[in-house]
Amino acid sequence: MIEPGATIGILGGGQLGRMLALAAARLGLKSHIYTPEADSPAIQVAAGHTLAKYEDLAALSAFAATVAVVTYEFENVPAPSAAFLSARGLVYPDARALGVSQDRLTEKTFMAELGLATAPFCAVDDAGGLARAVAQIGRPAILKTRRLGYDGKGQASVREGSDLASVFRSLGGPCILEGMVNFEREISVIAARGRNGDFAAYDVGENEHVQHILSRTMVPARLSPPIAAAAIGIARTIADALDYVGVIAVELFVARDAANQPVLIVNEIAPRVHNSGHWTLDGALTSQFEQHIRAICGWPLGSTTRHGRVEMRNLIGQDIDLWPEFLAQSGACVHLYGKGEARPGRKMGHVTWIVPPRQGPPGQDG
Amino acid sequence: MIEPGATIGILGGGQLGRMLALAAARLGLKSHIYTPEADSPAIQVAAGHTLAKYEDLAALSAFAATVAVVTYEFENVPAPSAAFLSARGLVYPDARALGVSQDRLTEKTFMAELGLATAPFCAVDDAGGLARAVAQIGRPAILKTRRLGYDGKGQASVREGSDLASVFRSLGGPCILEGMVNFEREISVIAARGRNGDFAAYDVGENEHVQHILSRTMVPARLSPPIAAAAIGIARTIADALDYVGVIAVELFVARDAANQPVLIVNEIAPRVHNSGHWTLDGALTSQFEQHIRAICGWPLGSTTRHGRVEMRNLIGQDIDLWPEFLAQSGACVHLYGKGEARPGRKMGHVTWIVPPRQGPPGQDG
Repeated sequence: MIEPGATIGILGGGQLGRMLALAAARLGLKSHIYTPEADSPAIQVAAGHTLAKYEDLAALSAFAATVAVVTYEFENVPAPSAAFLSARGLVYPDARALGVSQDRLTEKTFMAELGLATAPFCAVDDAGGLARAVAQIGRPAILKTRRLGYDGKGQASVREGSDLASVFRSLGGPCILEGMVNFEREISVIAARGRNGDFAAYDVGENEHVQHILSRTMVPARLSPPIAAAAIGIARTIADALDYVGVIAVELFVARDAANQPVLIVNEIAPRVHNSGHWTLDGALTSQFEQHIRAICGWPLGSTTRHGRVEMRNLIGQDIDLWPEFLAQSGACVHLYGKGEARPGRKMGHVTWIVPPRQGPPGQDG
Repeated sequence: MIEPGATIGILGGGQLGRMLALAAARLGLKSHIYTPEADSPAIQVAAGHTLAKYEDLAALSAFAATVAVVTYEFENVPAPSAAFLSARGLVYPDARALGVSQDRLTEKTFMAELGLATAPFCAVDDAGGLARAVAQIGRPAILKTRRLGYDGKGQASVREGSDLASVFRSLGGPCILEGMVNFEREISVIAARGRNGDFAAYDVGENEHVQHILSRTMVPARLSPPIAAAAIGIARTIADALDYVGVIAVELFVARDAANQPVLIVNEIAPRVHNSGHWTLDGALTSQFEQHIRAICGWPLGSTTRHGRVEMRNLIGQDIDLWPEFLAQSGACVHLYGKGEARPGRKMGHVTWIVPPRQGPPGQDG
């Protein structure tokens, strides 16, 4: 077990690394940020940092020597670097979780082998493979690069009349074709699994995306209790199968089956803290960031009790200009990430609103 | 108005400076810690720091040049240093607030001039003065140094039979003799005043001290609503009279008058965030630390809405060894300050428990 005063190593210096470092500090831990970018928001709140490429083995080795455990804020840590660090100490979540989530084909295959419903999918290695996949899955469908896609990057639609050769050329490399899911809503489960196998999930959130980027999360999601429990059960199945340690995010679609009953379809997993869990900073007893730190340190998981109904809104790009308005709104919890330039699509901050539960009769509360 | 991305200068590198820096980071601000001690907890979470004495004018000048506003975590900032910084930029709370709170005689006189009840008091400059003061106030009483006392330091009891000359010698220097207050309970008001005069108070907390050090705070305090409102009114009177900017803590005694009615007696003020407000980190929409940052930046004050009944317990000295037990307690919010040695009386962390309000009928909440 790691002791307070120890240093957590974090790969990645963005807002997730920053909020992990802030959570570590609450618990008496130091953070060391490893990032190739000097202007990283996480560096501003960490006791130490290394500026180097993720492939720089000498820098990784020195980094590993100064930290008690290594974690990361993004799933695209190069596999050889993760293996190198694993050979030198604790890395959570481990290489298997990274491997599954880095490749959409591996991820979907893993889900299917667990008996979980996914969108229909098919590997695509060349333009001819795309034609065969479209024949199998039909149109419309989405072609995605197997690796390095996020926030809608590395994706192309296959519609009626799309020229398959040019669609494939627009992405190139190994891809996966996924059938469209006619979903009612998008939800996500933010959960944590400890080193001892303990599991704790937050209430399920409902997500709205705009141009493939998360825009809003509302908690709880509009789900019947059995469906909400099933979503959390899916997250636990995945976490247990991976012998996972840390916070995991599982994104799902809620669709209807032929009998018009709701069904849950796994979209993707993220082996890390997740944007749709940012509400936990203000809306839950333990934030997802603290929960992740507790898990990777081998500490008990914290309570996921929620303070009320919650809405989280992302501040993307120029949304950040609204900061004075949000600060002036009573009850709005404002988070700004300390980033310089507000480029389009860049996550600059978020705002959380909490509606407390209705009070009981007067005099019952303090 | 200060913009996100700016740097807040904080005098003092202890746990209060650390929690101020963490709150500033949430709001997209950087922190620069000025402290004479290299092993300061606040440095671990700040973008920059200066290691220098508070009297080092060259270092203060360089510090002032890099920050948008200066604040402090302790009221014993040397007055000439505060004046020096004020001449170079914004310092909140200002020199007047510091001056009043640095000297117990000035502080008590200020309260009395505002018409607020205090313990009976009398200036004591020498052993003869102590004899005259005791004749006026009676025994038992407490002799305190006018300056630099905290957590019970710089105090001596005057009981029946006490030798006044030796009591005075044990402290020396300018003192104040205070009559004992036969109080029912100790409470504190944590409030904030903005640059524009806006005022926001948290619900009143009830404090328990052990050996002159805060041990527990419970919120709300056991007070009738009019008395709680009166306590907050006293805090506002003080803050307005000082044209105060930032978070202020006002410690009061609840006693009984001759007619057995509750009366409020001001004990002391702290021109800063305060240990008895630490519960706001987990138990309120806006923490006292964020509230202070908002105030000194000229930003709107945040909501002080409380999430439920709250208890905060300090981890003093060896209490820190209990950290694994508190971490394992579901619902305990654990804060550790990143300090090395657990010396007796040293504040090492705190734990907060929140009891949510009773729920309304099922289906009313989400």
